[in-house]
Amino acid sequence: MDEFGLIHKYFSPLARDFAGSLNLTDDAALIDVPDGHQLVVTKDAICEGIHFFEGEDAALIAKKLLRTNLSDLAAKGATPHCYFLAGMLPKGTNEEWVARFAAGLDEDQKTYGIQLAGGDTTSTKHGLGLSLTAIGTVPKGAALLRNGAKIGDDIYVSGTIGDGALGLLSLQKKIENDAYLKQRYHLPEPQLDLGLKLRGLASSCMDISDGLVQDMGHICRASNVGAILQHGFVPLSESAARCVKDDATLWEVVLTGGDDYELLFTASKEKSSTLSALPVTKIGEVVEEKNVRVLDENGEEVTLKQQGFRHFGQ
Amino acid sequence: MDEFGLIHKYFSPLARDFAGSLNLTDDAALIDVPDGHQLVVTKDAICEGIHFFEGEDAALIAKKLLRTNLSDLAAKGATPHCYFLAGMLPKGTNEEWVARFAAGLDEDQKTYGIQLAGGDTTSTKHGLGLSLTAIGTVPKGAALLRNGAKIGDDIYVSGTIGDGALGLLSLQKKIENDAYLKQRYHLPEPQLDLGLKLRGLASSCMDISDGLVQDMGHICRASNVGAILQHGFVPLSESAARCVKDDATLWEVVLTGGDDYELLFTASKEKSSTLSALPVTKIGEVVEEKNVRVLDENGEEVTLKQQGFRHFGQ
Repeated sequence: MDEFGLIHKYFSPLARDFAGSLNLTDDAALIDVPDGHQLVVTKDAICEGIHFFEGEDAALIAKKLLRTNLSDLAAKGATPHCYFLAGMLPKGTNEEWVARFAAGLDEDQKTYGIQLAGGDTTSTKHGLGLSLTAIGTVPKGAALLRNGAKIGDDIYVSGTIGDGALGLLSLQKKIENDAYLKQRYHLPEPQLDLGLKLRGLASSCMDISDGLVQDMGHICRASNVGAILQHGFVPLSESAARCVKDDATLWEVVLTGGDDYELLFTASKEKSSTLSALPVTKIGEVVEEKNVRVLDENGEEVTLKQQGFRHFGQ
Repeated sequence: MDEFGLIHKYFSPLARDFAGSLNLTDDAALIDVPDGHQLVVTKDAICEGIHFFEGEDAALIAKKLLRTNLSDLAAKGATPHCYFLAGMLPKGTNEEWVARFAAGLDEDQKTYGIQLAGGDTTSTKHGLGLSLTAIGTVPKGAALLRNGAKIGDDIYVSGTIGDGALGLLSLQKKIENDAYLKQRYHLPEPQLDLGLKLRGLASSCMDISDGLVQDMGHICRASNVGAILQHGFVPLSESAARCVKDDATLWEVVLTGGDDYELLFTASKEKSSTLSALPVTKIGEVVEEKNVRVLDENGEEVTLKQQGFRHFGQ
């Protein structure tokens, strides 16, 4: 089956409820933006052997790709609108793989209320590569940004931290087998509802993909501030708590491993009672000194070998 | 240099005049849409060894990627607004390559009036892959589509046909060396001005990337019509005319080779006097019988081995 056949059979059904997709029979899509709204646009790329294992289940790859982009929309307080997909498929990719990939997207489209609007399907001589562009909407001026953190603001995270990075170690058999952690690595849950609720509450926000400490540094640089994180306040799942109890060196993985896709945000202290009703945990405070420090229960600084994941890093 | 350093040094300057890019310090961009307008969004992916030669000049790769997407905007009658770029760079990509790539984008940004708004930079274990999402604006309802061709409409193309495909053969040393044809292959010229002028004139429109005959088929299927193309009317450059004079079998390359990035459109006969002032050539007519036929000077059908390029094709 050539690319036109693949698109018609597997991808057009994913676009059927989005009129602007023109049934994927065009090179471009038309997008209407509600009055008084802006678009939030994010684009991620993932590659075989870097972001997912070779031979990984195509449905899991599809879901993780969509969810990591939705997590970027959540961090902006945006409502999902539509997405574009580019697939660079190795020659010889079988139809079953494409069917599994599309089935994964279809399930998550229903879960998160988003539709495929367009994209491109090409062959590659090399490994599988995928790029997704997700588009959301937000009332003008309401988007959550990284640059609004103020000295004295509290620092919060949603959910629990470290599960994704520990899940990867579990999949690599570097730590004990843990189904919960592996699931958290494969299927992050974009915090879209929380993002909407943080409009008007958070002074800055982002999602944690590269690691808590490094991502806190991104907010600090954009806001021209620093941060102190309280090691003992970082919320852990039961599985993660068991890991760090068995091997305290795994704390480094929790704090810097990334792949959390939880929200990291700051808010002024006046918002703390409102925020106490949400599933978030206060983990620190914005300070003047322009770096990110993690303190233990005794107020001593926790030293970390690196702050988070970098492509092309040493 | 890690990806944050590369982005700051080479890509942030490409986004400096687009406020919604948030200086590329965020995971997402904010896009304002002018009142009364829709967005036109297109996304292409290109891979080493498929869409460009391994070791190709990075500036040429950048320009061709941007231009092919701009060609999709031109075909919709859209005005360029901004673009997103995902680069999957092989580990070991040197900084000089990134600098050349960014320089190519910078030049074409100035030529075509478009700015970088966001994207993603990752490493890959495999060959270079790139994906670009281009966003344009169009007054609501004014976009040129593929599905409006009517029986009796004239069929037109812009520029000259076949140069890109012959240029590829020249680069592959399968035909004689021709600088003009090679240039046409490397640096297509998106027909943005013409696209704007065709609003309200063309009944359907697309850009020719997969080959004239196959792309005409796309318009016919979307519009539920057929087409007769007059072989003798297809406009050729001097270089292409010389090629087919020396070897008549190269006509097949001209008609089906693709990589033209000229506009292919239909218009009712009442528009013909208006259209005669534009740099376009009438090459055929929309008919009822639902296929695409090419006729020679004697009205005999020209048989073609294939209609155009397909990934994953036989």
